[in-house]
Amino acid sequence: MNKFGKKFVVEVFGESHGESIGVIVDGMKPGIKVNYDLINADLERRRPKRVGETKRVETDLYTIESGIYEGITTGTPLLVRIPNMNIKSKDYDFKDMPRPSHTDYVSMVKYGRIYPGSGHFSGRITAGIVVAGSLAKMMFPYEIETKFLKVGNKKDNEDLDSYIEKISAQGNSVGAILKVTVKGVPAGLGEPFFDSVESVVSAMLYSIPSVKGVSFGVGFSGISLLGSEYNDPIINEKGETKTNNSGGINGGITNGNDLIINVFMRPASSISVPQEVYSFKTKRLETLEIKGRHDAFFQRRAVVVVENAIMIALADLNLRV
Amino acid sequence: MNKFGKKFVVEVFGESHGESIGVIVDGMKPGIKVNYDLINADLERRRPKRVGETKRVETDLYTIESGIYEGITTGTPLLVRIPNMNIKSKDYDFKDMPRPSHTDYVSMVKYGRIYPGSGHFSGRITAGIVVAGSLAKMMFPYEIETKFLKVGNKKDNEDLDSYIEKISAQGNSVGAILKVTVKGVPAGLGEPFFDSVESVVSAMLYSIPSVKGVSFGVGFSGISLLGSEYNDPIINEKGETKTNNSGGINGGITNGNDLIINVFMRPASSISVPQEVYSFKTKRLETLEIKGRHDAFFQRRAVVVVENAIMIALADLNLRV
Amino acid sequence: MNKFGKKFVVEVFGESHGESIGVIVDGMKPGIKVNYDLINADLERRRPKRVGETKRVETDLYTIESGIYEGITTGTPLLVRIPNMNIKSKDYDFKDMPRPSHTDYVSMVKYGRIYPGSGHFSGRITAGIVVAGSLAKMMFPYEIETKFLKVGNKKDNEDLDSYIEKISAQGNSVGAILKVTVKGVPAGLGEPFFDSVESVVSAMLYSIPSVKGVSFGVGFSGISLLGSEYNDPIINEKGETKTNNSGGINGGITNGNDLIINVFMRPASSISVPQEVYSFKTKRLETLEIKGRHDAFFQRRAVVVVENAIMIALADLNLRV
Amino acid sequence: MNKFGKKFVVEVFGESHGESIGVIVDGMKPGIKVNYDLINADLERRRPKRVGETKRVETDLYTIESGIYEGITTGTPLLVRIPNMNIKSKDYDFKDMPRPSHTDYVSMVKYGRIYPGSGHFSGRITAGIVVAGSLAKMMFPYEIETKFLKVGNKKDNEDLDSYIEKISAQGNSVGAILKVTVKGVPAGLGEPFFDSVESVVSAMLYSIPSVKGVSFGVGFSGISLLGSEYNDPIINEKGETKTNNSGGINGGITNGNDLIINVFMRPASSISVPQEVYSFKTKRLETLEIKGRHDAFFQRRAVVVVENAIMIALADLNLRV
Repeated sequence: MNKFGKKFVVEVFGESHGESIGVIVDGMKPGIKVNYDLINADLERRRPKRVGETKRVETDLYTIESGIYEGITTGTPLLVRIPNMNIKSKDYDFKDMPRPSHTDYVSMVKYGRIYPGSGHFSGRITAGIVVAGSLAKMMFPYEIETKFLKVGNKKDNEDLDSYIEKISAQGNSVGAILKVTVKGVPAGLGEPFFDSVESVVSAMLYSIPSVKGVSFGVGFSGISLLGSEYNDPIINEKGETKTNNSGGINGGITNGNDLIINVFMRPASSISVPQEVYSFKTKRLETLEIKGRHDAFFQRRAVVVVENAIMIALADLNLRV
Repeated sequence: MNKFGKKFVVEVFGESHGESIGVIVDGMKPGIKVNYDLINADLERRRPKRVGETKRVETDLYTIESGIYEGITTGTPLLVRIPNMNIKSKDYDFKDMPRPSHTDYVSMVKYGRIYPGSGHFSGRITAGIVVAGSLAKMMFPYEIETKFLKVGNKKDNEDLDSYIEKISAQGNSVGAILKVTVKGVPAGLGEPFFDSVESVVSAMLYSIPSVKGVSFGVGFSGISLLGSEYNDPIINEKGETKTNNSGGINGGITNGNDLIINVFMRPASSISVPQEVYSFKTKRLETLEIKGRHDAFFQRRAVVVVENAIMIALADLNLRV
Repeated sequence: MNKFGKKFVVEVFGESHGESIGVIVDGMKPGIKVNYDLINADLERRRPKRVGETKRVETDLYTIESGIYEGITTGTPLLVRIPNMNIKSKDYDFKDMPRPSHTDYVSMVKYGRIYPGSGHFSGRITAGIVVAGSLAKMMFPYEIETKFLKVGNKKDNEDLDSYIEKISAQGNSVGAILKVTVKGVPAGLGEPFFDSVESVVSAMLYSIPSVKGVSFGVGFSGISLLGSEYNDPIINEKGETKTNNSGGINGGITNGNDLIINVFMRPASSISVPQEVYSFKTKRLETLEIKGRHDAFFQRRAVVVVENAIMIALADLNLRV
Repeated sequence: MNKFGKKFVVEVFGESHGESIGVIVDGMKPGIKVNYDLINADLERRRPKRVGETKRVETDLYTIESGIYEGITTGTPLLVRIPNMNIKSKDYDFKDMPRPSHTDYVSMVKYGRIYPGSGHFSGRITAGIVVAGSLAKMMFPYEIETKFLKVGNKKDNEDLDSYIEKISAQGNSVGAILKVTVKGVPAGLGEPFFDSVESVVSAMLYSIPSVKGVSFGVGFSGISLLGSEYNDPIINEKGETKTNNSGGINGGITNGNDLIINVFMRPASSISVPQEVYSFKTKRLETLEIKGRHDAFFQRRAVVVVENAIMIALADLNLRV
């Protein structure tokens, strides 16, 4: 249920109101030196600090409480624990007026109630995905890089920080399209059906709150290409292709070229702009205005979550072979 | 490996060169009357017969050899077997010159060789997915419909058949973007992490050969919306929303509104236009021209595959609750 | 559900009343020559022909319909299909008077009815386990041998066939304790928790109808040994032990010594001796006498089922490493 | 890998040398009040305090750090964390002279080294199984009781504590056969193949260190019964049987009668009697004498581990239906 993977198995746990959140990772080979600097650097990338990011402080002091002896993996499950510092949440209770596109309504349906800080739906849980991805990278250290293809309606010649500041000042939020490139992934990962590389990677990415689109290679833009233009001709013995419209995957299997993954992350649903909501108490539409420390643009924080999620998927695909 | 699902488990088998292809479906509840007309109609939709579709005859005579007694499911696995009528394949052997964006190269890497008719990579295997989906619909008969949002560069005022005929005459192929709407799915399916509805549905869809993009709701177009525009306000006690930019899913869980899924299917890689290929024999670039019965536009045949794949995913999500 | 294994995955299907029974095996590596003689020999061992075995003819003509090309595995799932020759069953319907210790009662509870020939509970389904085991042996050809430690109350100096003939003449049946030894299994298979070798092997063995006891090494007889007697001292660099009370497994992991597995198979529940039964129709106890072709001692036929079940478990454990 | 279950999923983690051990439990329904008294009582039963049990103090102070809000389950994974109080182990390093029937040798093979306190093989890990079982009992509170059928060579008229004291004084250990009875389990749990009740329960039990035999109903003693004696006649409409030789399971499915499970736990391998060992350093047999705080008879402590392991298996079987 709350698990991902067959050979590199990741399970997240925790809620904003509990004593800790974290992740348990099974499948690390024994004998690997844990690179704490990498984990720290990855968590630092996820921390809010840029323009348009929440002013909440997230400390993310973690301990790895099992699966390690003298800094070396033992081959048994690693419990990564991140204590919650401030477990007294005074969040507004949205039971009567579930916030638009938030998890309030589905939480009521699925769990029978709404928890402070969104409970297990909290974006904070992605800190566990980050650390699991750092661990994955210790086994399979592929080069990975991410570019923002689009940020809301920002024009190409507009400065990102100024654009975000403007959105933030309005109490609003924007979405982004990311293009992630992974270099060095060997050919032959994945299965033709059900465990295609696209299946495994997209299943992982769609665990990240706010991801609403995942495509590979040229993605949906491939609509304008004829078959003769879309096809990627191999040009040498190493299997390198002239173009890479397929994003490094044919028939569900990696072909050794760069993996190209596009991800759309919708605008944050938490905004302070007044919104129309339905009140289950008064049985009519009301106006809701939520003041607070929102992310106008959380997607820069999320880059490391997306990258590390992909690295988890690739580690699992690798270990299955 | 070649399996999908936790409670409605689907495994496909077969190659174009073997005695049969098919699917084994575990998780059908006992006591369900098998609707053979539905299966026949679904298979008929997948059969080539439209403009721009292969002239190969695919008979798809099937038997359900287990899991049924007197036309009623028994609660045990159903073997759906589709005999291969013509197992003598005289396909060109592409070992030395793997076709661009085809499975030839990855087949060499993964299995050590290329099989006639692409072996297990054959699009023919999707017949099994179709029947599994028909079975899923017997348990959860949601209303599902599909529209073509885009077909290659076809203009809105252009006739589809004429457009495809033109592409077909060139020996070329085009892609398509499909928008699938599922009505009647209850709120509460899915999990916040790793088994989000988006994860399960996209993992299934990415098993279909040529799917290279999957998005939900407004998908990547949501980039132009601010948070205040993207959010879907609930308007009544049933949880209906004014807009449906989220495609019926929040926090990975269905919210009871229509499920909206967009799928990009790339142009068929098999074309008869001359293509540049690398010869692993002569160690240089050559020109390859493959005459044959290609699909210039297989995507109309694939609509039922996409729909039934989604129905399989929804059946599994339902039975997990 | 009806599946076993993580990397060598076996799913059985079929009922005595259907068109075919069989097994689908996923996880065979590509490039393995299929040894049909081995499959035939294994199926022959399971066929009734000895004293005290049913007079029913089971033909077991099988085809392998996928996953093979020119006699060599392709790396994709193998469908092994065994057609049912005589699907018209005129079996007595035991709905009103479920037979003692038979599957009639639980079939009513679980599936809502009883199927002719016991449906999916039929011992005939074990033919699929046999073939899956033959395939496992093609990858991991360990030496395996089985001895009968005990057969009912047969005395050591009594001839087995005479003993069974006597039981058979009474319309009765007897149980057996088998000791299986597997030689050549490498050290290091298994996991400390949940996937211990004992867990995986016993889970597999308890799928065989009528198995009601599984133990390892000296098994329950170890009760009479002190720790100092039970412990198996290593005697050389290869890790060989002086005794093998642990049956080749410590901490859930194989230690490189012979694997020793004891299996108790209860007497067949189908007997022709008159038996007391409860009639759900008359609401009172009745006497039931079932004439027919019963196995007084099916356990000699079952040896190959037990052995091949173990080989499936070992193949899976091997491929997981 | 280190996981058990499909719908009630239990994963243990930790080593004696780490910061904590524990268990993560996924599958608790939301809305269940956590019974801490039950957990405390169960952990207390596992604590050493009886004659012949180790003098080590195991505190087992635990916290449940997620999946609970205001004492009620939320429906998300529960992290149960038990800090290790004394992580400085000065254990003898058995690398050169692996202890007989201990995990030293297989740890070398599988993980490349031996960890202090046996690492993840430590019996201490079973504390996590106990708590997971307590949680299972909060959902499915079946009545369960355990009897010692045999304790080493203890005679029926001999006092248990005196017997154990004698063994303990010798620095030796003894095994035990337990008979566990579970009352109130509904009919219809389990599957005919691969997920039979016997398969699931035995797989779980064989995760407990030192379990080397598992049987159901009369177990191996059934060898002396004819089919007509072994069969359990139903005697009333509720499906109750006159005898219960099958232990409440037919065809892999519970029949509603008491579940009867027999478990053989071998004598503890850690003893202080001098033992013959092979030295991988000197390349010859040596005598090893290990002084320390051993369990001469840990099986009384283990009763709650066995019971709770069974309750975990039953919870999982229940939730799968």
